[in-house]
Amino acid sequence: MTLKALFLNCTLKKSPAVSNTQALIDLVAGLMEPMGVECETVRLVDYNIAYGTESDMGDGDEWPEIYAKIKDADILIPSMPVWMGVRSSLCQLMCERLDGSYRDLDPRTGQYPLYGKVVGVIVTGNEDGAHDCCATTLYNFTHYGCTVPPNADCYWVGDAGPGPSYIEAGQGHLYTNRTARFLASGTVWMANMIKANGPIGTNLIELTAEAQKVSTDTAPAG
Amino acid sequence: MTLKALFLNCTLKKSPAVSNTQALIDLVAGLMEPMGVECETVRLVDYNIAYGTESDMGDGDEWPEIYAKIKDADILIPSMPVWMGVRSSLCQLMCERLDGSYRDLDPRTGQYPLYGKVVGVIVTGNEDGAHDCCATTLYNFTHYGCTVPPNADCYWVGDAGPGPSYIEAGQGHLYTNRTARFLASGTVWMANMIKANGPIGTNLIELTAEAQKVSTDTAPAG
Amino acid sequence: MTLKALFLNCTLKKSPAVSNTQALIDLVAGLMEPMGVECETVRLVDYNIAYGTESDMGDGDEWPEIYAKIKDADILIPSMPVWMGVRSSLCQLMCERLDGSYRDLDPRTGQYPLYGKVVGVIVTGNEDGAHDCCATTLYNFTHYGCTVPPNADCYWVGDAGPGPSYIEAGQGHLYTNRTARFLASGTVWMANMIKANGPIGTNLIELTAEAQKVSTDTAPAG
Amino acid sequence: MTLKALFLNCTLKKSPAVSNTQALIDLVAGLMEPMGVECETVRLVDYNIAYGTESDMGDGDEWPEIYAKIKDADILIPSMPVWMGVRSSLCQLMCERLDGSYRDLDPRTGQYPLYGKVVGVIVTGNEDGAHDCCATTLYNFTHYGCTVPPNADCYWVGDAGPGPSYIEAGQGHLYTNRTARFLASGTVWMANMIKANGPIGTNLIELTAEAQKVSTDTAPAG
Repeated sequence: MTLKALFLNCTLKKSPAVSNTQALIDLVAGLMEPMGVECETVRLVDYNIAYGTESDMGDGDEWPEIYAKIKDADILIPSMPVWMGVRSSLCQLMCERLDGSYRDLDPRTGQYPLYGKVVGVIVTGNEDGAHDCCATTLYNFTHYGCTVPPNADCYWVGDAGPGPSYIEAGQGHLYTNRTARFLASGTVWMANMIKANGPIGTNLIELTAEAQKVSTDTAPAG
Repeated sequence: MTLKALFLNCTLKKSPAVSNTQALIDLVAGLMEPMGVECETVRLVDYNIAYGTESDMGDGDEWPEIYAKIKDADILIPSMPVWMGVRSSLCQLMCERLDGSYRDLDPRTGQYPLYGKVVGVIVTGNEDGAHDCCATTLYNFTHYGCTVPPNADCYWVGDAGPGPSYIEAGQGHLYTNRTARFLASGTVWMANMIKANGPIGTNLIELTAEAQKVSTDTAPAG
Repeated sequence: MTLKALFLNCTLKKSPAVSNTQALIDLVAGLMEPMGVECETVRLVDYNIAYGTESDMGDGDEWPEIYAKIKDADILIPSMPVWMGVRSSLCQLMCERLDGSYRDLDPRTGQYPLYGKVVGVIVTGNEDGAHDCCATTLYNFTHYGCTVPPNADCYWVGDAGPGPSYIEAGQGHLYTNRTARFLASGTVWMANMIKANGPIGTNLIELTAEAQKVSTDTAPAG
Repeated sequence: MTLKALFLNCTLKKSPAVSNTQALIDLVAGLMEPMGVECETVRLVDYNIAYGTESDMGDGDEWPEIYAKIKDADILIPSMPVWMGVRSSLCQLMCERLDGSYRDLDPRTGQYPLYGKVVGVIVTGNEDGAHDCCATTLYNFTHYGCTVPPNADCYWVGDAGPGPSYIEAGQGHLYTNRTARFLASGTVWMANMIKANGPIGTNLIELTAEAQKVSTDTAPAG
C-alpha cells in the first residue's frame, strides 16, 4: 500500500529563489520516502491562484490543478513562512480556496473530499509565530476533514527579532530535527491506519438530519 | 470495548452555578452515551489547582486527582468559555499543568501519557473567539500526544458584542447541534480505531537518538 | 487642520461585486467626514499586488501606488473579511508588503514612515474570528509605527457557523453601530492630538545605539 | 508632572522564586525611572485572586487591591510568560477580572476607568508565542480604554523548542534591549501627551444614544 504525501509550500518567493520552507520540506520528505511514501511539493507562488472561495474561479485560475493534487494525496503538509507573526498570505489564500471543498460532497455520507486524509504542518520563520501558524492551519484542515496525529508539526524559528533564517542558521537544531521525525512517523502511521480501517464512519448527511429535528433555525449546510 | 470520555469543564463559575459550557457538554455526552461511551465531567474551578507546570505542585494541590482521570480516559474534551476572545484562565491553567506530562514517559517509546488518546473541544461564548480557543487547545493536546479526528469541535457564539449566552439563546442553533453530532461521532470512531489498531507506532526515544546524530546542539528532551 | 483617513479594504471580491466590508467602511467613513476628515478607500484586490516583503517588487507591481497613499494618510483603517477564523489573504499580503517600510527610515530619528499615524480596524464575517483579526492587525501596525486609541475596532459577525453576512443581516446591530462611532471618534481625537503635539519623540537610532552598548549580539536593525 | 507605571507580573512562580519576566520588567522599569516615572510591580500569583468577571468576587478575593493600583496608574505594563504558545493563566485571569471595569463608568462620558491610560507589554518565553501574547493583550487593553503607542512591546524568546530562559540566556540580546528602550520611550511620551491634552474626548453615552437611533436591536451596553 503506497501513500502519497503532498507538501504545499506557501513561501512568498517564486522559483528558483531559495526557500527556507522548502529546505525543511526536503528534510521531512527525505524521511518519509524510505517509509514508502511518494512525496510531491507544490510551490503555490509559482501558480496563478485567484482570490476567492470557490474551487474554480475561472479566468486563468490555476487552483484547480493544485486542488486535484490535494484530493489525490493521503497526507497533506501545508508548509509556510511566518510573516508578522501570522501564516503567509499564500497559506491563507490556500485555506480560503479550500472553502470550495465544502460544496464538493460525497453523495452518500456528505463528507468533504479531504475526509480521511492526514495533515501535518511545517513552519519556518526568523523568530516567532510558529505556534499560531500551526494551530490555525491544523485546525482549518480538521474542518475540511483531515485527521491530526500526535506531534504533527515541525518548525524552526530563531531568537526574538530579526536574525538568520533556517538555512543560514545551519539546519542543525535538534528540536527541529526531532520533530521532523515525529511528524514523518506520526502522519505515516496514521495514514496507514486510516487506509486500512477506513473510511471514517461519520455520516454528515444523517447527522445533519438528526440535528435539524431538534433545531429552531435552518442554517445552510456549509 | 467500552470507551471513556472525560469532559474538562473550564468555566469560571463554581458549582452549583449554571454553566453554559456544561449545557453544551451535556448535549455532547448525551450523544456519546448511546454509542457505549462512559462519560464523566470534571469542573476544574471546583478543585484547588495550583499554578505551575509540574504534575504535582504539593501543598493541597488537587491537580493530581484530575490528572489521574485524564490518564484513564480514551477521549478528552476540553470545554471552555471564551473571555476577551481567549480561552478561559482555567483552560490555560490546565494546559500549563499538562506540561508535567512531558516528564512522565513510557520507558520504551518515550511517548507521553496522552499518546493514543483522542481529543475534541467544546466552546461557548457570547460572541466571538471560538476558532482561536479551538485551534490553540486542539494543537496543545496534539503536542501532548492526542489525535484530532475530523470536525472535532463544537461551539456556540452569538452576534458581535454582548448578548445572550448559549442557554438563554435557547439551545436550538442548527450549526451547534450538527457539530455536536460530528464531534461525538468523529471522536468515538477514531478512539475505537486507535484502540483496535494501536498503540501508535512512533518511538520518540529512537527518533530523538537519530535526530541527535545530525544535530549540532543538544536541547533538552522536553 | 484637515485629517486624511485611508480605508484599506481587503475583501476577496473585485469591484463591482458587493463587499460587506465596504458597507461597514461606508458607515464609518460617513461618521468621520462630518468631523472634517477626508476619507478614501483602496480596494486592494482591484490592484496587481506582488507577493513579497519589499516596497517595490518591480514587474507590474502596483503596491507602490497604495504605499504612497498609506504614507500620505493620518488615519489608517485596515478593513477585512474573516476566512477560516483568520484575516483575509489580502490583509496578510498588505502586512507583508509593509515590511518594506522598515527600510524606509527618517534619517534623524530612524522612525518608519507610519510613525505618528493612528490605526483602527474594521472586520466583517459570518460568525467568528473578529478578535483575532483585530488583535493581530492592530499589533502589526503598532510595529510599523501607528498608535491605537481606545476602542479602535468595529466588527460585525453573526451566530456560530454559516449564516447571513453583514448587509444581508440588515446593518441594524447596535453593537456594531456603537463601536463604529467609538472607532471614528477615537481615531480622529487621537490623530488630532498627535498632529498638534507631534512628532512622537522616540529616537530609534539613539536608543538602538544605547542598546548596542549593553548587548552581546548584533542583530540587524529591522 | 510625575507619571506612575504599574507592571503586572503574570508569572506562575510565587515570590521569592526567580522570575524571568521580572528580570525583563526590571530592565524596562530601570529605563523609565530616569524619565521621572514612579514604577511599581504587582506579582499577581502572590495574591489570592478569585476566578470571575466582577471587580470584587468577595470571600477573600484580593483583586480589589490590585484593581485600585491599576486605576491609579498612568501606564500599565502587563508582563507575562508564554506557556504552550499562549499568555499565562494569570494574565488571562487578570483580563477576565478587568471585565468588571466595564460596569464602573464615568457618569458623564461613560468611559471605563482605564480610559486615558497607556499600555505596553512584556513577554518572556523559551521559544515562541510572543506575538500572540502581545497582540491579544494589547488589544484587550484597548477595549478597556487604553492607548497603545508605537513599538509598545518588548519580549525575549529563544530558538524553537525547549531551551534557556531569558536570564539563563544572558540578557544580552540586542533586539530585546532595543525594544525595551522603544517601549519605555513610547509609553512615557504618549502618557505625557495624553495627560497634557486629555481627557480623551469620546463620549460613550452620547455615541451609544446616537447608535440606538439607527439600530434594530438593543444589546446591553457592556
